[in-house]
Amino acid sequence: MRFKIISAEEAAGFIHNGDVIGCSGFTAAGCPKAVTEALAKRAEVEHEKGNEFKIGLFTGASTGDSIDGVLARAKAIKFRSPYQSSPDLRKAINEHELEYFDLHLSELPRLLRQGFLPRPNFAILEACDLTDDGKVILTAAVGIAPAIADLADHIIIELNRYHPKALAGIHDIYDVKNPPQTTVIPISRVSDRIGKPYLQVDPDKIIGVVETNRPNETGGFVPSDEITQKIGANVADFLSVEMKAGRIPQTFLPVQSGVGNIANAVLEAMGSHKDIPAFEVYTEVIQDAVIELMEREAVKFASGCSLTLSRRALETVYSKLDDYKKKIVLRPQSISNSPEIARRLGLIAINTAIEADILGNVNSTHVMGTRMMNGIGGSGDFCRNVELSIFTSPSTAKSRNISAIVPFVSHVDHSEHSVKILVTEYGVADLRGLSPRQRAAIIIEKCAHPDYKGLLKEYLDLGVKGQTPHHLGACYAFHRTFQKTGNMRDVNWKDFQ
Amino acid sequence: MRFKIISAEEAAGFIHNGDVIGCSGFTAAGCPKAVTEALAKRAEVEHEKGNEFKIGLFTGASTGDSIDGVLARAKAIKFRSPYQSSPDLRKAINEHELEYFDLHLSELPRLLRQGFLPRPNFAILEACDLTDDGKVILTAAVGIAPAIADLADHIIIELNRYHPKALAGIHDIYDVKNPPQTTVIPISRVSDRIGKPYLQVDPDKIIGVVETNRPNETGGFVPSDEITQKIGANVADFLSVEMKAGRIPQTFLPVQSGVGNIANAVLEAMGSHKDIPAFEVYTEVIQDAVIELMEREAVKFASGCSLTLSRRALETVYSKLDDYKKKIVLRPQSISNSPEIARRLGLIAINTAIEADILGNVNSTHVMGTRMMNGIGGSGDFCRNVELSIFTSPSTAKSRNISAIVPFVSHVDHSEHSVKILVTEYGVADLRGLSPRQRAAIIIEKCAHPDYKGLLKEYLDLGVKGQTPHHLGACYAFHRTFQKTGNMRDVNWKDFQ
Repeated sequence: MRFKIISAEEAAGFIHNGDVIGCSGFTAAGCPKAVTEALAKRAEVEHEKGNEFKIGLFTGASTGDSIDGVLARAKAIKFRSPYQSSPDLRKAINEHELEYFDLHLSELPRLLRQGFLPRPNFAILEACDLTDDGKVILTAAVGIAPAIADLADHIIIELNRYHPKALAGIHDIYDVKNPPQTTVIPISRVSDRIGKPYLQVDPDKIIGVVETNRPNETGGFVPSDEITQKIGANVADFLSVEMKAGRIPQTFLPVQSGVGNIANAVLEAMGSHKDIPAFEVYTEVIQDAVIELMEREAVKFASGCSLTLSRRALETVYSKLDDYKKKIVLRPQSISNSPEIARRLGLIAINTAIEADILGNVNSTHVMGTRMMNGIGGSGDFCRNVELSIFTSPSTAKSRNISAIVPFVSHVDHSEHSVKILVTEYGVADLRGLSPRQRAAIIIEKCAHPDYKGLLKEYLDLGVKGQTPHHLGACYAFHRTFQKTGNMRDVNWKDFQ
Repeated sequence: MRFKIISAEEAAGFIHNGDVIGCSGFTAAGCPKAVTEALAKRAEVEHEKGNEFKIGLFTGASTGDSIDGVLARAKAIKFRSPYQSSPDLRKAINEHELEYFDLHLSELPRLLRQGFLPRPNFAILEACDLTDDGKVILTAAVGIAPAIADLADHIIIELNRYHPKALAGIHDIYDVKNPPQTTVIPISRVSDRIGKPYLQVDPDKIIGVVETNRPNETGGFVPSDEITQKIGANVADFLSVEMKAGRIPQTFLPVQSGVGNIANAVLEAMGSHKDIPAFEVYTEVIQDAVIELMEREAVKFASGCSLTLSRRALETVYSKLDDYKKKIVLRPQSISNSPEIARRLGLIAINTAIEADILGNVNSTHVMGTRMMNGIGGSGDFCRNVELSIFTSPSTAKSRNISAIVPFVSHVDHSEHSVKILVTEYGVADLRGLSPRQRAAIIIEKCAHPDYKGLLKEYLDLGVKGQTPHHLGACYAFHRTFQKTGNMRDVNWKDFQ
């Protein structure tokens, strides 16, 4: 091999205080691990010496602990974008130890290329194979790899032997140029391949190759329970009714589905529904449920940005890789999350809300309006442009002391204009074509937990005039009561007039 | 002519209580007038007889008084979508006399074709010419004409002799099919024509032609004043700096610009700026400023959905129509407001906010969170997907008793994730890459009126913990104080803890 094999510590040694790092991967899949761990150690050593050592960090989405976790604990991050799900990093963000810029995932490559954000001078890419002329075969995800490889001065490759070289062919690397060079993204079907199976980088930028043999740090998800199963059944029933009514074609539409146990339960319910035909998936994160449904031929093809699979499911894929490469494609997030493609393919987008309000606004990011949970992720990329945007949530949290259906969300990520369907374990509110007061009535009727229906109706009775029943004094009565008593049901309207 | 010439009253006679009407046009341009006026009279007569008479109404955007005004005053509207700007209709909406569904303008044709919204059974189209085989030449706008002509059972043509038949050739009629038939929209340059110069309708659907001779009901806009001129200069200066820094190409980028006197002032400032080259416009509403800049060759080409011009400016265009048809194209709103095209062309989108907050959220629709002003219009179509999304607003309103920069907007139409640049007469806040606390600091510094800077900083000092400084008790202190004393400056934080 033309490139120098170096240790993770040597690689980390190239990186200095103030540098800006971009990493391959999307979720914990496809992320580098060894160099960032060594970098965290280097930061700790420098900090002990009394030296400043912090870096800027761009990734595709969340990462494994060996990026966000170790670097947050080492206090080595100066700024971070666009998404995270690490408990330690989350804590650091909410305590203002770093600046966190929460962004629509499709937009990051474009914003980086625009040149206003700090330019990543180092790209760290996890690869399963590499040629002397700079053809990089990525592993279980793509993320922002094309953009950062293009923009960085230096590239470090983590050559991870855990992933078979035979992954070559699963990726479709095609990145979108910024205007005025932007062209049509010529995807008309979920399975269309428009790019190359490798990422071409400038070989002169590669300053070293670190050899590793480590699995993805992706865990399994919490299994579905009675409530998530009911949510899944409600979504599947709704979609089958839409199909029978001719509002979804008989061939169905491609499905985008968020991350987590509700998303798994929804996919499982759809895959098992007698009236829903085998469908295609066009999404960012390919989860275990997709592979399970592929094994049962309930899902025909999956396009995504990452294989975010439990070790068992990933091994299923790797054991039949020739077969799976015919029905899975991994794309950069500028393509997997592209608004252009989401609208053209007419996706059904199913994402999870932290809370929703009776007006149809959705909070995807902030607990009680202030504390960052993870980030908006791709939910905005999809909900804004797809054929049918569905948000799901259990109707309550914290032993029912929190209602997920509130008078007004404590943070608005998706506005009433973009949220079309709301689903809890109690039912489905179809908000298309409804005025705010009509939406409020149907959301309370169909989605709210019985414990909170009366309180939500009382809120509407406070007598706000105008198109939208938004009471500036009482809209956060649920949240503020919870902050005081630990139970939203204790609300006393007299305190909020 | 094959079709029967009928009176407006005869045409209105075809329409019954409960029918759903779709109208051509976008703003007051291109709208029918005579049939809807006759319909309002018919409704009044029926109401006097004690009969129910209300219709559902879909249009491209706002209309002239002869649609929204007369029908609202006649209490003849049951539901209305997607946008309006009529004082009488606004009043009726806010008093719940009808249901108003406020929607992203690009989405209406798609949602109508989806089949869940009530289907328009009548389409009323304003035309300047018509052939026996159903080729309709529209007038000064397109709007949702292709979708409603397709969906309706019956079509009524208002043949308006005010508009020259020679308009033929200015329109580019190409509508987007719903999935799975959706294909690439093959526009790669602002001036690309991809459709037909006429709207092909089924001639058997045309139940009559009403002859008229009436100008558009478009007024001139309020002339720019010192504040709007400063906003315009701030936007133009910012864009020229971006261009010098290489973040906007030297050939510039196409511009989308909202409606009204601020938009006119911004365009005027850009067209007069020494460092901004002649540019192209890709927008929904082509206003007077665009024509003035075209006359000076500061704008090279304009693509829009409507010619919303003062009578004088429209006559300028009509007097040199052969020339203007080479540099203006009118498209359906599914194309003029298409997210796919907005992103591909890399638009600079400049829209007006009612208010913005220190977190970067923008309110485009509701006064004090409850009272509908007009609607979201195309601002969401553009801001979500363009290369650079800019929102402008004067820093104060009502003799400075209202600050347009508030702790938290009373309605969120565009979230912190999508708003990139905020501009008032005081300056420009570039929010790209910033965390919520960084955004708050720069918005207060650059955009807030000096009278409110101290109060906004005090809000930040209330000690909210977490990523986002959103105080659930005090976030509406400005608004609630205004409701009590008529002056946001009277805020007393002790009342809002």
